[in-house]
Amino acid sequence: MIVQTKSVRFDSISLDGGSTVAPVDVAYQSYGVLNAARSNAILVSHAFSGDAHAAGISPETGKPGWWDNMIGPGKAFDTNKYFVLCSNVLGGCRGTTGPSSVNPATGKPYAMSFPIITIGDMVRLQKMLVEHLGIQRLLAATGGSMGGMQALEWAVAYPGMVASAIPIATTARHSAQQIAFDEVGRQAVMADPDWAGGDYYDKNPPARGLSVARMVGHITYMSDDSMREKFGRRLRNRDEFGSDFEAEFEVESYLRYRGSQFVYRFDANSYLYITKAMDYFDLANGCASLAQALERATARFLVISFTSDWLYPSYQSQEIVNALRSRNKDVAYCELNSNYGHDAFLVDVGEQTEMVRGFLARVAREEGVL
Amino acid sequence: MIVQTKSVRFDSISLDGGSTVAPVDVAYQSYGVLNAARSNAILVSHAFSGDAHAAGISPETGKPGWWDNMIGPGKAFDTNKYFVLCSNVLGGCRGTTGPSSVNPATGKPYAMSFPIITIGDMVRLQKMLVEHLGIQRLLAATGGSMGGMQALEWAVAYPGMVASAIPIATTARHSAQQIAFDEVGRQAVMADPDWAGGDYYDKNPPARGLSVARMVGHITYMSDDSMREKFGRRLRNRDEFGSDFEAEFEVESYLRYRGSQFVYRFDANSYLYITKAMDYFDLANGCASLAQALERATARFLVISFTSDWLYPSYQSQEIVNALRSRNKDVAYCELNSNYGHDAFLVDVGEQTEMVRGFLARVAREEGVL
Repeated sequence: MIVQTKSVRFDSISLDGGSTVAPVDVAYQSYGVLNAARSNAILVSHAFSGDAHAAGISPETGKPGWWDNMIGPGKAFDTNKYFVLCSNVLGGCRGTTGPSSVNPATGKPYAMSFPIITIGDMVRLQKMLVEHLGIQRLLAATGGSMGGMQALEWAVAYPGMVASAIPIATTARHSAQQIAFDEVGRQAVMADPDWAGGDYYDKNPPARGLSVARMVGHITYMSDDSMREKFGRRLRNRDEFGSDFEAEFEVESYLRYRGSQFVYRFDANSYLYITKAMDYFDLANGCASLAQALERATARFLVISFTSDWLYPSYQSQEIVNALRSRNKDVAYCELNSNYGHDAFLVDVGEQTEMVRGFLARVAREEGVL
Repeated sequence: MIVQTKSVRFDSISLDGGSTVAPVDVAYQSYGVLNAARSNAILVSHAFSGDAHAAGISPETGKPGWWDNMIGPGKAFDTNKYFVLCSNVLGGCRGTTGPSSVNPATGKPYAMSFPIITIGDMVRLQKMLVEHLGIQRLLAATGGSMGGMQALEWAVAYPGMVASAIPIATTARHSAQQIAFDEVGRQAVMADPDWAGGDYYDKNPPARGLSVARMVGHITYMSDDSMREKFGRRLRNRDEFGSDFEAEFEVESYLRYRGSQFVYRFDANSYLYITKAMDYFDLANGCASLAQALERATARFLVISFTSDWLYPSYQSQEIVNALRSRNKDVAYCELNSNYGHDAFLVDVGEQTEMVRGFLARVAREEGVL
């Protein structure tokens, strides 16, 4: 099914950092039908490099959405029952206002004059979209990785508006190692002379730096096991070692290809702003503990992690679960077996589908939906 | 104790790739006294970015060697008993011939005309040095990380010349993930315009690219735990999030500093050649299995790994141990508890010292040394 990306413009949005972006556009897609009571809406938030195209087929690229295996008729997020919504994040480069957008005050792209943004700012903009669509309360807020951070933020920032939250393969705060990996990516972008302090929009983008950053990302998304299974030590077109530094191992050419393609669909400045938003993310900010931060949440929680995910290891999901349990919150937790590393929430969705389907059925029943 | 770096020049060395480097210099240091029988020599091989300065104090920098906590009077490699030798690897940039050395045929640095090298080539040059010093048989060949690969290579390539091998925190072959991390580093270097195809020796070196590469390396050398303990989410000079992309988290400024300093002591082309040598390394090359490759080894083995080392995880050491056991070889294995990740073999040496000391005492006794 072909799905069009829609867009809505708001006058302005106030940010956690104190500044304002005006106007602000939000690109979004939706799947399924909003019921008359507007009570069957599920908000799906995308991960770092995702966009609003979560499901169906894009008319431009002909490609399925990033969670098409989870969203659709009869799937985990069953569009025969639910109205599923996905928007591109603030600071992004896929239709929602971000550093590559034109600043009406100057007539030029914001570039590095775009204000610092947070996960809280992203969620505030989503709330504006949800309210714009006349939805008072989401049946669920969900997403994997950075999408999971947004689901957690929803539950804490707007407790009355979310009946449930399904954070997947995520964390309540970035660890030093997670910040470190993000910082390597940012440094790779900023080390590229083509980055030019962010003012590259009428010139060549920092393709080499962004490619290196993406290569690091891909390693962290996979597991040692899944890389071994996919590539092993197989050589490309050679039996013996070569005489130059062309890609020889399959894993090298794979990473180079994925890195080099990334620049065609992602803006380098968005890379900087969005990774920084993840690094700032700490659900316990301003609270004595994570448990205290989660005290005001009223949503039912389903927390999912994956055994081989070393970028967002299970212990980080367990910290969320323990904090919720310590406050007697309604929480279910599953650590799912997968060899796919962090990518598991995108590619290894069999068990995840069962967990989500059962959980949503219960929430819908308790909420009087359907 | 001040230790001078010595150097020896050989007419030429033949490489696994078929070419020859002529002449070839080897920089080395030694500690302790070679006994009359020349039977108490221990060869220590350095890791990727190490050099011949393994112990004692450098007269140039005033700094201790990289394994000074392991080598010295009364230490694991007890210089009251043993003659300890460490040389800079072939392809290096710290006194041994490598891409930054002048090619006598052109009068200019080899740069990328330097031939591809292997761990086998590094060990062949070490053998020339050892024989030059009149040593027929090493009491032990040891090292951590890439140094451990060399210890393994010694045991298989020159079985009659090594009474024992102590490979630490290493592997018999680079996995897809290890190749991937190395490839990211190489791409970061080569993406820097200052790399200039390797011809930067009379200009600025590719400092930004090499810095990014080193940052990735540092993340892989530490553990999630050790980064949390060392940095947590502590901010530098700020309470709240900032308005720019200066280093804010302590882990960011640490990585940037370590990255930026690396260019003063390491050559970017050596980075390319040496990481490639590690990626090519596969002890089982040309054999049906690792066990078959190790069949000709006659050394006693002590294999050490560390619980939190995710760059060279314990399962890779266990593969070596299993292969040796399957051929009834003399092998002891210890997985040591440490939070320090791959760096543990350099910094968390308490238990490692006990293991090495006991093992060497037995080997020395059986070899009739002392």
